Amino acid sequence: MGELDAPDRDAREDGPSPRRVPLQTVTRLSLYRKILVELHHEGVEHVFSHRLAELAGVHPAQLRRDLSLFGSFGSVSRGYDVFSLSRTIGRLLGTDRVQVVALVGLGNLGRTLLTYRGFEERGFHFGVVFDRDPEKVGRVYAGRRCHPVEEMERVLPEYGARIAVLACGPVGLETVVERLARCGVRAILNFVPRHVAPPPGVHIEDVDISGKLEMLSFLAREDR
Amino acid sequence: MGELDAPDRDAREDGPSPRRVPLQTVTRLSLYRKILVELHHEGVEHVFSHRLAELAGVHPAQLRRDLSLFGSFGSVSRGYDVFSLSRTIGRLLGTDRVQVVALVGLGNLGRTLLTYRGFEERGFHFGVVFDRDPEKVGRVYAGRRCHPVEEMERVLPEYGARIAVLACGPVGLETVVERLARCGVRAILNFVPRHVAPPPGVHIEDVDISGKLEMLSFLAREDR
Repeated sequence: MGELDAPDRDAREDGPSPRRVPLQTVTRLSLYRKILVELHHEGVEHVFSHRLAELAGVHPAQLRRDLSLFGSFGSVSRGYDVFSLSRTIGRLLGTDRVQVVALVGLGNLGRTLLTYRGFEERGFHFGVVFDRDPEKVGRVYAGRRCHPVEEMERVLPEYGARIAVLACGPVGLETVVERLARCGVRAILNFVPRHVAPPPGVHIEDVDISGKLEMLSFLAREDR
Repeated sequence: MGELDAPDRDAREDGPSPRRVPLQTVTRLSLYRKILVELHHEGVEHVFSHRLAELAGVHPAQLRRDLSLFGSFGSVSRGYDVFSLSRTIGRLLGTDRVQVVALVGLGNLGRTLLTYRGFEERGFHFGVVFDRDPEKVGRVYAGRRCHPVEEMERVLPEYGARIAVLACGPVGLETVVERLARCGVRAILNFVPRHVAPPPGVHIEDVDISGKLEMLSFLAREDR
């Protein structure tokens, strides 16, 4: 009673097949999950779809469509169960367990990312770090010993990392990406302001911070 | 002779009206410009549209459509003039001159951004920095004295900054955004993992790094 749709046990426990979920939906699901985790921390147990949609800045119909992938979680009288829904989305995203991430590059940005708590809070752990600077190799950064990039093939497979973050210099970036791919990495977050064509089966997501500033510069023009 | 389209003097000199350019086009123009600047540094004087499109990872027809906003720059025999096109796009983006940017928050991330050369290279200069931590206020970071957030209304208007970067804590973020808006800031790059509704006439662009990692986590699932 009170369920918006007929409950679907299978969908509840396993969620949708990851092959069936479009990438844009994943981005929104990640946002819903972030909001749900915040609500859970605030002690909120249930949330109505229109409120969750408002917090996420999407149309309520869009949110309901996205969440319908999981079967039904909403009740007419109480809305969605905050904790249960955040866990279910986390399972789909693969963030319900700690994932080891490899970091390449221990300059200012790399060291900042290493100590950025937002990653650990969402289940990402930088388990292994690399640099090619002989001054950095062998030193310990936030508890991780820095390995030389040249030893990636020997060191990285032990950690089973499928995700890597690039915060190194632009020189030889293609080679670093090829090495990561050979070591089993399938997804790369690239902070280096240079685009690299991804090897087959690998996804590279560029974070172009100055590019974003250029867009803002355009938006801040006085004649707009 | 050799021009792909009839030359259009006005379009060449002033570019399109900023009101007429869609935001997604701006993002691509920013990418083209980045590639053109790299080519220019490598000594390349001309580039054909299909090569530029390939480097940018877009369809050649898309690139030609985007650049047609500026009138014609391409020649059949030599392609686009690298330097001239990068300057023209820079004028539209507002990055042809140095722009003062305000930075709020001098934690690890803020200090990293302050020394990130990619910003200066693209014409962005952090001219004024704020923090609310009394330990940081009054100290000098990379040549800038840290001002207290509470004095923003007194200090910021002198600098005429229309762009700000947020790298502070999430507490009181709405207030910081309102203050920036009152001081004339029109575009904000937000690194704080929290969304703030923008005041009227202000654009806020969130950089959600952990959100990107969640998407990559999904892409790196073994069953995909």
